[in-house]
Amino acid sequence: MSIVVLGTVALDTVKTPYGFRQKMLGGSAAHFSMSARLFTTVHLVAIVGKDFPTEYIAFLEKKGVVLDSLIRSAGKTFHWHGEYQGDMNVAYTKRTELGVLVEFCPQLISYQRKIKNVFLANIDPDLQTRLLECMEKPRLVGLDSMNCWIHNKRKSLLKLLKKVDIFVANDQEARALSGQHNLLKAAKWIRQRGVPLVLVKKGEHGVLFYSDEGIFSIPAYPTDCVIDPTGAGDTFAGGFMGYLSTQKRFKSQQIKQALVYGTIAASFNVEGFGMERTAELTMSDLHRRLAEFRKIVVF
Amino acid sequence: MSIVVLGTVALDTVKTPYGFRQKMLGGSAAHFSMSARLFTTVHLVAIVGKDFPTEYIAFLEKKGVVLDSLIRSAGKTFHWHGEYQGDMNVAYTKRTELGVLVEFCPQLISYQRKIKNVFLANIDPDLQTRLLECMEKPRLVGLDSMNCWIHNKRKSLLKLLKKVDIFVANDQEARALSGQHNLLKAAKWIRQRGVPLVLVKKGEHGVLFYSDEGIFSIPAYPTDCVIDPTGAGDTFAGGFMGYLSTQKRFKSQQIKQALVYGTIAASFNVEGFGMERTAELTMSDLHRRLAEFRKIVVF
Repeated sequence: MSIVVLGTVALDTVKTPYGFRQKMLGGSAAHFSMSARLFTTVHLVAIVGKDFPTEYIAFLEKKGVVLDSLIRSAGKTFHWHGEYQGDMNVAYTKRTELGVLVEFCPQLISYQRKIKNVFLANIDPDLQTRLLECMEKPRLVGLDSMNCWIHNKRKSLLKLLKKVDIFVANDQEARALSGQHNLLKAAKWIRQRGVPLVLVKKGEHGVLFYSDEGIFSIPAYPTDCVIDPTGAGDTFAGGFMGYLSTQKRFKSQQIKQALVYGTIAASFNVEGFGMERTAELTMSDLHRRLAEFRKIVVF
Repeated sequence: MSIVVLGTVALDTVKTPYGFRQKMLGGSAAHFSMSARLFTTVHLVAIVGKDFPTEYIAFLEKKGVVLDSLIRSAGKTFHWHGEYQGDMNVAYTKRTELGVLVEFCPQLISYQRKIKNVFLANIDPDLQTRLLECMEKPRLVGLDSMNCWIHNKRKSLLKLLKKVDIFVANDQEARALSGQHNLLKAAKWIRQRGVPLVLVKKGEHGVLFYSDEGIFSIPAYPTDCVIDPTGAGDTFAGGFMGYLSTQKRFKSQQIKQALVYGTIAASFNVEGFGMERTAELTMSDLHRRLAEFRKIVVF
């Protein structure tokens, strides 16, 4: 079953100890799509400006991403300029040009409203709410956010939490939202706000999952080849939600498998700038590394 | 097969958000013994002062720890006074009174020299070297250290690395020793110094193991009940080395199992002050939690 993803499509200018790239294809929804596409058809809901390169459009189409609800508006595409230093665990934002993002009002072609799986990637929670209201009867809704919305649109975000099935946050976000430092306590707190499944991404330390099905903890795939971590969290979410979209049930077994697919997809993302690695990824690449990961983790 | 552990036996005064305890039994070798004793007979090599409570001696003996090489000297027992705040990930040392530790010269009863397994818990690397020279033909030697020795006795430590089988470090120590931030790179660097097995403890994020047998990554047992983390790393090492001491081979299977035993033992340690929890621990407690851990981690 296919999935709708709402989020940003951006031009990313990124500097890391391994190099500098200008105006790469980026954004939460684009990175999500690049791994979710391996499992299912992805319908992208986003906005870009007139400056958005046609080759990026062609690239996304070639990867099978449905762009029926990608708005091309007058103005400039959202541009993020960031830098990573040393351990690359923290992104330093040098400049953010919102461009056409400020006027974004997500719209869906009518057939897309019937799609059963939705991921609300990082974007203003009011837009996320609006998109969710457009969907007819989704069976699986995932939600991501970021510190800026947690602080500035807390009320909208907390309201939205009650309407989704899965909340995906990184460790800092889970702590900021809950006020709890211990991540298990943070996940419990978030769950008590009405969302049954909580997933905390800990970057190089893996993920923690918390639900009625139990607690799951999966380490990251150990790598010493981190070139550019931009989009790793969205790539994780794409693998995780992409796999779940194809499943009938969301029991321990499916959730663990989804966590592992997300982990492996994210491990490829960090090994190149932007989507260099994930753009070329196939299911057999994923499965090859998954077998290796099993040797590393399973006892 | 039994194991010799060299390290500190201390009086610990600890303040955490959950309470304050004065002069509890502590120290690297004591915490190590409390989990290693579950697997094998532990021979403790350490020094205490005349102020060391006789009930602590009786307690260690009751737990089966062999004290033939525990020196009781005139003077005061090593006293560590520390505090943990907030997330309790960092110990703030308020005061350290070395006491009799400054005059410590480890000695072994002659029959102990033949023991095949040795753990050199955190203490001056010159003392660790000295003890190792006393051993006849150990088949398994583990080594722990800390930032103070990494900075002040780097040469001794690097020399000692070539003589041991396993180096155990926490993430900060591995980074400080190697100058590498990425932990896999740090582990590789350490291994190139001549130690075949490298184990990096990441606290709440689990452990990373690096050897010819492969890379293993095991998350910590997720808990929201962290009362006092003092000694968690030593308790981990006790479970890890204790189990390996009973094994004939050190292949993937044994190493993974040892990592899991260490993980589970450490998870009990943090749930109480000092040795409150580990002192009462039985193999069936360990196995019960191990089964639960398997559900959390294994996919």
